[in-house]
Amino acid sequence: MVKVGIVMGSTSDKMVMDETCKLLSEFGIEYEVRILSAHRTPDEAISYARGAYDRGLKVLIAGAGGAAHLAGVLAGVTTLPVIGVPMSTNLMGGLDSLLSIVQMPAGVPVATVAVGKAGAKNAAVLALTILGLSDESYHQKLVEYKESMRQAVLANNEDGAV
Amino acid sequence: MVKVGIVMGSTSDKMVMDETCKLLSEFGIEYEVRILSAHRTPDEAISYARGAYDRGLKVLIAGAGGAAHLAGVLAGVTTLPVIGVPMSTNLMGGLDSLLSIVQMPAGVPVATVAVGKAGAKNAAVLALTILGLSDESYHQKLVEYKESMRQAVLANNEDGAV
Amino acid sequence: MVKVGIVMGSTSDKMVMDETCKLLSEFGIEYEVRILSAHRTPDEAISYARGAYDRGLKVLIAGAGGAAHLAGVLAGVTTLPVIGVPMSTNLMGGLDSLLSIVQMPAGVPVATVAVGKAGAKNAAVLALTILGLSDESYHQKLVEYKESMRQAVLANNEDGAV
Amino acid sequence: MVKVGIVMGSTSDKMVMDETCKLLSEFGIEYEVRILSAHRTPDEAISYARGAYDRGLKVLIAGAGGAAHLAGVLAGVTTLPVIGVPMSTNLMGGLDSLLSIVQMPAGVPVATVAVGKAGAKNAAVLALTILGLSDESYHQKLVEYKESMRQAVLANNEDGAV
Amino acid sequence: MVKVGIVMGSTSDKMVMDETCKLLSEFGIEYEVRILSAHRTPDEAISYARGAYDRGLKVLIAGAGGAAHLAGVLAGVTTLPVIGVPMSTNLMGGLDSLLSIVQMPAGVPVATVAVGKAGAKNAAVLALTILGLSDESYHQKLVEYKESMRQAVLANNEDGAV
Amino acid sequence: MVKVGIVMGSTSDKMVMDETCKLLSEFGIEYEVRILSAHRTPDEAISYARGAYDRGLKVLIAGAGGAAHLAGVLAGVTTLPVIGVPMSTNLMGGLDSLLSIVQMPAGVPVATVAVGKAGAKNAAVLALTILGLSDESYHQKLVEYKESMRQAVLANNEDGAV
Amino acid sequence: MVKVGIVMGSTSDKMVMDETCKLLSEFGIEYEVRILSAHRTPDEAISYARGAYDRGLKVLIAGAGGAAHLAGVLAGVTTLPVIGVPMSTNLMGGLDSLLSIVQMPAGVPVATVAVGKAGAKNAAVLALTILGLSDESYHQKLVEYKESMRQAVLANNEDGAV
Amino acid sequence: MVKVGIVMGSTSDKMVMDETCKLLSEFGIEYEVRILSAHRTPDEAISYARGAYDRGLKVLIAGAGGAAHLAGVLAGVTTLPVIGVPMSTNLMGGLDSLLSIVQMPAGVPVATVAVGKAGAKNAAVLALTILGLSDESYHQKLVEYKESMRQAVLANNEDGAV
Repeated sequence: MVKVGIVMGSTSDKMVMDETCKLLSEFGIEYEVRILSAHRTPDEAISYARGAYDRGLKVLIAGAGGAAHLAGVLAGVTTLPVIGVPMSTNLMGGLDSLLSIVQMPAGVPVATVAVGKAGAKNAAVLALTILGLSDESYHQKLVEYKESMRQAVLANNEDGAV
Repeated sequence: MVKVGIVMGSTSDKMVMDETCKLLSEFGIEYEVRILSAHRTPDEAISYARGAYDRGLKVLIAGAGGAAHLAGVLAGVTTLPVIGVPMSTNLMGGLDSLLSIVQMPAGVPVATVAVGKAGAKNAAVLALTILGLSDESYHQKLVEYKESMRQAVLANNEDGAV
Repeated sequence: MVKVGIVMGSTSDKMVMDETCKLLSEFGIEYEVRILSAHRTPDEAISYARGAYDRGLKVLIAGAGGAAHLAGVLAGVTTLPVIGVPMSTNLMGGLDSLLSIVQMPAGVPVATVAVGKAGAKNAAVLALTILGLSDESYHQKLVEYKESMRQAVLANNEDGAV
Repeated sequence: MVKVGIVMGSTSDKMVMDETCKLLSEFGIEYEVRILSAHRTPDEAISYARGAYDRGLKVLIAGAGGAAHLAGVLAGVTTLPVIGVPMSTNLMGGLDSLLSIVQMPAGVPVATVAVGKAGAKNAAVLALTILGLSDESYHQKLVEYKESMRQAVLANNEDGAV
Repeated sequence: MVKVGIVMGSTSDKMVMDETCKLLSEFGIEYEVRILSAHRTPDEAISYARGAYDRGLKVLIAGAGGAAHLAGVLAGVTTLPVIGVPMSTNLMGGLDSLLSIVQMPAGVPVATVAVGKAGAKNAAVLALTILGLSDESYHQKLVEYKESMRQAVLANNEDGAV
Repeated sequence: MVKVGIVMGSTSDKMVMDETCKLLSEFGIEYEVRILSAHRTPDEAISYARGAYDRGLKVLIAGAGGAAHLAGVLAGVTTLPVIGVPMSTNLMGGLDSLLSIVQMPAGVPVATVAVGKAGAKNAAVLALTILGLSDESYHQKLVEYKESMRQAVLANNEDGAV
Repeated sequence: MVKVGIVMGSTSDKMVMDETCKLLSEFGIEYEVRILSAHRTPDEAISYARGAYDRGLKVLIAGAGGAAHLAGVLAGVTTLPVIGVPMSTNLMGGLDSLLSIVQMPAGVPVATVAVGKAGAKNAAVLALTILGLSDESYHQKLVEYKESMRQAVLANNEDGAV
Repeated sequence: MVKVGIVMGSTSDKMVMDETCKLLSEFGIEYEVRILSAHRTPDEAISYARGAYDRGLKVLIAGAGGAAHLAGVLAGVTTLPVIGVPMSTNLMGGLDSLLSIVQMPAGVPVATVAVGKAGAKNAAVLALTILGLSDESYHQKLVEYKESMRQAVLANNEDGAV
């Protein structure tokens, strides 16, 4: 059953958001992808977010760049947690995207992660973390993922060095 | 007949947007004010912008701060020109508002003016300029306004100094 | 039963983080507050975060300013979602806090919200949203909260104006 | 009949401003291009802008980078709406251009759009929007353009997905 | 005989530019002040700068804030050195003013000094420095001024401490 | 006779500062180049600047990047005008260099020009402008240079277009 | 015996640098204070730094704001570690000071601490840390200081809460 | 005997931190390298830093990028001086790394150097400087290094030119 809806405003964001998809697959989390724009297809974007809860989704992830309104617009019409992934841009490396996503007014939060691919990966990990709160198998996946990261880092040091 | 619709997301933006109102009044341009939020009242905001053209409005002016999505959201659903006024904020003096409003994706422009009160005034002047394209009386008002500004500046210099 | 642990590095962050507390109370979410620093009490901070899952907590909220490492350090040692609230600072209005919190490396996300009081409120709303995924009463609270915000905005407009 | 005057300070801005030209052509809007600099050919730039209204132009579009004074200088001497397109630069991705164009003093607005090619395209769309206020055929073009963008976005989703 | 022309776009810049005036007086350099705007009185501003060389002026000093075009516009039409003083603003403390003044295109320099009062003082010192190149009495004034600054700093240390 | 001393802290700045050299040559202004660092060869840098006035130099030009102290250090020990050229860097495109050069304390100005090659060219033009104040042949060169720039811009427009 | 030399460019930096003094006193570290400017008293500043090693000093601490060259200039002529404390300024809260101090070229480091009072305190702690490397009594002071900070933080939590 | 511990959060920082290694080798300072992350291996990172003093290390150097918490976390649990090297990133060229490292709260300093390779080199020079305080042979190495830099700069000037 689909747990996570990934929305992005343009196919140009796909290469970055693929990091989210890959990691969700690795975690065994079913997801769906929509290309929907807050400005070019506002009705469809809003209608998608509005119906997500009833369709059983648990988390929405929105990737957007520049005047990155997508995450905020989705957050306005859903009761699901919305994770925002700021795309890197030419203007100060994505600072415009970041500020547009994170500086939401009181009452309508977007859970913002880092700019670009690190953020796209972290959107998946954050989704896993949230899902893990009510599903022990996901929680176990997170425990293993954190341990595997730990081992991967330690493997860079010679035996016994640390 | 109402020509300009002024929309702001919160009453806290009122003090700044009053500059727009005062100047529109001075220009003899009828306007209406709505407090509507892209995130808290998305349906009403969208419905207002969507109906504005048919109600005979000519220009929408949106004042917003922080993750200032309002202007962009309105621009997505109207064929009227949308002027965006970034509110000053604590984060870098309103740079977040400015970038959220101006960095719109291709296809959905927001005519952005300066941050804060200067921008609020300029939204009114820009509206007058646009209205002046098809109504000679407004054009004449703009000519007079520009001349009055010129005189006001020159009056600061002693007679004959310039 | 305590669901949310609020951690801040210094009592000077209390005035801002009180916004989180007030809203959590309003939502009927039990919480606990700890003053723990990633740099001055690293053992206690880490031990607190490490034990939080087993103590039944569901969400950690960390408020921090400047080189705001607290949220990231907690996120490194817990499998709970960590929400980061950047404190406003004198340096570019809190941009240092924001970047320190949001730019986490792949694998260890912090769900970052806006700088200052708006962010502190949104941390509570985001916690409610996450809790609402597995507890219908919290979900209902969120539905009502969103509706009350909507009504509060609309009340600023004259009858029938929208 | 020429409706739009495109002015840029240097031929190096041409590649970006070609996006404006292409889109205006697509919209069937006649335009003319001038290479004129606020600093190197101030007389010609001012004289061009000053005569534009009487020559029947409706909109001026100025592309400029760095200390991008061109749009503001034109705005000072014309009663036409001036759209400013900030060029990308090496300094913070064009933030210098953006601030120089958008932060105009009260009384002399420049309708600023996004930095670079997205902004250049949006200058054309904004011009179309303004022209559409008094010419139904342009308004119809805008309606169609917005619908075509919508379809293009939706086409990225599988049948029935949205 | 008047050597320096001080131009500012608005009387609100006067408090800062008074620092320039005071220091020029202290140096015995005759100056004149004009309130002229690049946008509101472009003809007068340009005509003033254009005539300055023939009237015997040696240096122009322009104070401006925001989209601070004044210095650049003057520099375009004069063969005198133009010193630009960026006014402090709410947006990032005057970074907008600074970038608008300093980032001039090749061929038309503005000698830019620091933002605000320190810059206003330094405009006077820079003018003195330039005048000192061809007038030994001014050069001597600069030598004395530098020595007096040195003494003032040293006086803060106890006798013999340094 | 050498009129201009060009100082740079490292040979890596040479490619940019060559723009200054080329233009000075074109203007017929004799110059000399020194590689001297405020941090690695402070004695030589200071001694060079201190002796420059007596050796008959009229203008010092300093190119520096990062914590670009060179221009300021030279300005502290000379009564000649010092022009500062900020080098482009990886950190925000040279904003660090720009701020280090322009934000000088009251009493010790550096005449700052744009970041990178445009600034390097403008350092030469500013030197020519200053030299032109007391040497009519230089002034004439500046008049011609400005006219040639004007012609070069106008040549981009079709005959009679402007 | 004096171990630490504190240098600041202006008495206006004294209020901030007093934090350094107070903490050094608390640590029992003898220090001396000099008001010396890299630009107004370069000879004295350089001579002071150059003689510091032979006079038995172990650490230099430089407080400076704006184009904060002082720390870098001292670092160029001493073999002692130089700690730089960026003063807060109006331009982006001291970002100019910070970048001027930290972005030193390869070979001449300045150990930079935070902007303003937190940085001034940390300069003292860093000095203590360095002195502690070769003097066990200072090292012990640092151990106690860190423990006292830990206790002070923990005291904010109710008994047994952590 | 190992004097310096170099820690970095990821092998991707290795290319930059190699500059530190090379220079330490050149200075004859023994060092060890650890790949340890504040977020992925917090226990090992903390345990390494905690044991460093007793193992006889004198200086820790931490290279980190983005939400660069590593240096601060190490500084919290050691009484050795910690030098922080901010890695360059896509977001504003490493400004996020720099602010995360330098803006430490009062009591827990990180001696921050420049972003990227220049900073990595300077970490080595700063370590040498600190070690030189209690070991004359290191001090002599620093004297020679500074002189060799001086000669290298001067060699760029023709004989007798300076």
